[in-house]
Amino acid sequence: MDQPLRLGLAGLGTVGTSVIRLLRDHEEALTDRAGRPLRLVAVSARNPNKDRGISLDGLSWHSDPVALASSPDIDCFIELIGGENGVCREATRAALDAGKSVVTANKALLAKHGIELAAAAESGGGVLAFEAAVGGGIPIVKALREALAGNRITRLFGILNGTCNYILTRMEAEGLSFEQCLADAQELGYAEADPSFDIDGLDAAHKLAILTSLAFGVELNKDAIFVEGIASITAEDIAAAEELGYRIKLLAVAQETDSGIEQRVHPTMLPKNSQLARISDVTNAVAVEGDFIGQVVLSGPGAGGDATASAVVGDIVDCARGFRAPPFGRPVASLKPYQRARMRAHPGGYYLRLSVPDRVGAFAAIARAMADGGISLDSIVQRNRPAGAAPRGNPDHLRSVTIITHDTTEQAVRDALGRIEGEGDIVGRPQMIRIEAL
Amino acid sequence: MDQPLRLGLAGLGTVGTSVIRLLRDHEEALTDRAGRPLRLVAVSARNPNKDRGISLDGLSWHSDPVALASSPDIDCFIELIGGENGVCREATRAALDAGKSVVTANKALLAKHGIELAAAAESGGGVLAFEAAVGGGIPIVKALREALAGNRITRLFGILNGTCNYILTRMEAEGLSFEQCLADAQELGYAEADPSFDIDGLDAAHKLAILTSLAFGVELNKDAIFVEGIASITAEDIAAAEELGYRIKLLAVAQETDSGIEQRVHPTMLPKNSQLARISDVTNAVAVEGDFIGQVVLSGPGAGGDATASAVVGDIVDCARGFRAPPFGRPVASLKPYQRARMRAHPGGYYLRLSVPDRVGAFAAIARAMADGGISLDSIVQRNRPAGAAPRGNPDHLRSVTIITHDTTEQAVRDALGRIEGEGDIVGRPQMIRIEAL
Repeated sequence: MDQPLRLGLAGLGTVGTSVIRLLRDHEEALTDRAGRPLRLVAVSARNPNKDRGISLDGLSWHSDPVALASSPDIDCFIELIGGENGVCREATRAALDAGKSVVTANKALLAKHGIELAAAAESGGGVLAFEAAVGGGIPIVKALREALAGNRITRLFGILNGTCNYILTRMEAEGLSFEQCLADAQELGYAEADPSFDIDGLDAAHKLAILTSLAFGVELNKDAIFVEGIASITAEDIAAAEELGYRIKLLAVAQETDSGIEQRVHPTMLPKNSQLARISDVTNAVAVEGDFIGQVVLSGPGAGGDATASAVVGDIVDCARGFRAPPFGRPVASLKPYQRARMRAHPGGYYLRLSVPDRVGAFAAIARAMADGGISLDSIVQRNRPAGAAPRGNPDHLRSVTIITHDTTEQAVRDALGRIEGEGDIVGRPQMIRIEAL
Repeated sequence: MDQPLRLGLAGLGTVGTSVIRLLRDHEEALTDRAGRPLRLVAVSARNPNKDRGISLDGLSWHSDPVALASSPDIDCFIELIGGENGVCREATRAALDAGKSVVTANKALLAKHGIELAAAAESGGGVLAFEAAVGGGIPIVKALREALAGNRITRLFGILNGTCNYILTRMEAEGLSFEQCLADAQELGYAEADPSFDIDGLDAAHKLAILTSLAFGVELNKDAIFVEGIASITAEDIAAAEELGYRIKLLAVAQETDSGIEQRVHPTMLPKNSQLARISDVTNAVAVEGDFIGQVVLSGPGAGGDATASAVVGDIVDCARGFRAPPFGRPVASLKPYQRARMRAHPGGYYLRLSVPDRVGAFAAIARAMADGGISLDSIVQRNRPAGAAPRGNPDHLRSVTIITHDTTEQAVRDALGRIEGEGDIVGRPQMIRIEAL
C-alpha cells in the first residue's frame, strides 16, 4: 500500500460538506480503488463555528486558505471556495506553484484563469482537475480529455444550466410565467437570491468556454461567447413552441466553422422528440460529435452537493492513482489561439414574435420586409394580444405576429427586423429565438 | 518529448483498419494529446494479401500474433482478433506477462478470462484497457472505473446490443415480423450470418458481466446471468406494448439486492417516455445509479469500426500518458466473490400472452389461477388469433389472451403459468415479458 494522499479542503458549503461525507462513507472502498488511503487532514472556511452537520474533529483548521493550499502537510488541495478572483485564485496558484495537485469545482475561476492555472500545474508538476466544474456529476471533462481524445471534435452542444432548465420545464408543463417559475426556483434553492448569473446565461457560458478548450484544443475565451439569457421568454413563446412541435431550451453550442470556433449560449427551439428537448428540470446533458465517434450524449444531475462531490472525489481518485493528463487535454503551449467565428453567418430557421399595431398594412409591411431581405417564411400567424389590449381597429390595439422562417442567416433576420423597426411597424423589442434540428 | 509509444496491432478487420486510419489521420493531434508519438510498428492478421483499403507499408508483419504480442519492438499490444479462447487469449497473456500494456475490444475474452488477465496485468506492471469492449464508443468503462469511483453503485441498466435494438426498433416502426427485421439486419451488416450470439442475448450478457465487475467491485461471472433473447418477440407483443404505452427493449440490468448482485438480460417493456425507451436503432445506452451521483445516462454508437476505434485510441492515449488504474477498478485481490441474487424474487409487473383454446371456462380458469397465486391483474384482454384460425366456438380455434399484472414476483407468475399449463388451459409456450418503470 502506498502512502496516503493527504487532502486539504477549502470551502465548507454544500459541496464541501458532501465531499467530506463521501470520503467518510466510502473510506474503505476508496482506499481499494485508489490504491492508497485518501486522508482529509485540513480544512478552511470563513466561519469556524457554523454547524454544518458534520464533525470536523481531528482536522487541522486553517483560517487562511492560501496557507492551507501551500501547507507541507497536504498533497492535494480541494478548492470549493468559489469566485473568479481573490482568495480562490491565490490559493489555487499557491498549491500549484508548490507542486501540489488541485481539484476544483470552480467554473468561474477556470473560465477566467484556466490557461494560467494549467501552465502553473505543468511547471509545478501537479494536476489541475475540474470534472465538477461542468455538468455537476456528468463525466464530460474526462470524456473530452481522455475517452474521445482520438477524435477531431466538430461540434458540442448541451444544457449546462440547471436553474434555467428547471424554469423552462415548469413554464412549459404548467403554463406559468417566467417570473413565477423563477420565484419557485429561488424558494427551492435552485436559484440564487440574485439569479442573474444563471438566467442571463453567464454560468452556462463559463462552462461552455471550458468545454470548448478541451474539445477543440484552443485557448479558453469566455468573452468571445455570444450570450442571451432566458428572461425575455414569455408564456406565449413557450405555447407557440409547443404548438409548432418544439421545446425552448437554453442551449450552449460550440462548433467548428470555416472562420473559427463558434461559441454561443441562447434560448433555442429544439424539436420535441430530440434527445436534448427531453432533458427536464435541473438535469444537464451534453452531446459531443466527433469524426470517429459520431455522437455521444451524456446526461445527469448538473448540480447539487452530492452529485458535484461525486465528480470531485472521482478527480481525487485519479490523483491518488498518479494520473497526470494535461488539464485541457494538451500542453498549454500546444493550445491554439482562439479564433472567433463570425456569429451572424450562422444559418438556420428562426422564430420571431412581434407586437404589431392593429392598422391596415402593418402585417403586409412586415411580410414585405422579410421578402426584401430574401427570407422565406414557413408560417406567419397573427394573434390578438392576450392582455390589456385596446379595442380592435385602433392602432393602440396590439396584435402579436408569430413568424417561422426557413433557413436563413442571422444577419438577414437582424437586417429585416431593423427595417421593420425603422418604419415603425412594430412596438417594443422583437423576440427572436433560433430553431435548431439538433 | 518522451519516447514514442510503440504499438503492435493484431486483427485487421473493420475495427483494426479504423484504428490504423485514425492513428494516421490524427497523428499530430494525438502526439500533442498523448505527450509522445503513438507509433504503429507491427501488425498481425490471418491473410497478408487481402486488400483492406489501407497501406501496411513500413509495418513489420507478424503471422503469429503471440510472437507480436511479446515482441521487444512494441510497448502496447492492441488485441482486435476476437474470440474467447485460443490465440487472442494466448497473445493477450503473452503481452501482459512480458510487462506490456494491452488494449482490447474483446468482450468475450474479458467476460471469460477478465480476472485472470487483470491479475496478469497487475503482476506484469502493464495496463489492461478495454473501453471498446462495452458500448462501442461510449465511455462507460472509464465512467465506472474512474469518474464514478466515489459512489456505491446500486444499479445499472442499459441497451448493450445494437443488433437487437435495431430489430426491435424496426419491428415497432414498421409492424414487421422478427424474421423480416433480422434478415434486413443481416443484409445491412448489423447482424452476423449466425445471429444467435446477438439475438439470444449472449453478447449483451458478456458486456453486462464486465460492467457488473467494474460497478460493484465483484469478480466477473457471466454464467450467473439470467439471459433471454428476443427471438420469441412477435409483432403482436410489439403492438400490445405500443397500445399500453410501452416499448420492448432488450435490457441488461445489474443491481444490488439483499441476497447478492442480480444480473439479467431479457426483453423488457419500458414506458415509452423513459430515456432508454427512446434509444433507437443500433444506438446503445447505459444508465448508472449511485448513492452520490444519482443517475447518469451515457448513449452513443454501440458498434461500428470508427466508433470502436475511437474507444481503442482513447485507451492508447491513456496508456501513453502513463495512466495505470486497476482494470476492474480495484486490485484483483480486493474484488469480492460474486454472490448471485435470487432472480425469481424480483418484483415488478408482467406482460403475459397466452394462446387459449376457444372453449367455455378457459378464460375463467386462467383468471382463477392468477387469483389463486395472489397475482393482481391490471388488465386481461382476449383477442382473436390473427392467422390460420379454426372456426369460432371450436376448441381448435385459438384466442390470444393478453394479461398485464400489477407488481408481483417472478416466482408467483411462473407458478401460476405452471398450473395453467398443467391443466391444459393454454396451447404452446406462454410469452412473459417483464415491465419496468426505469
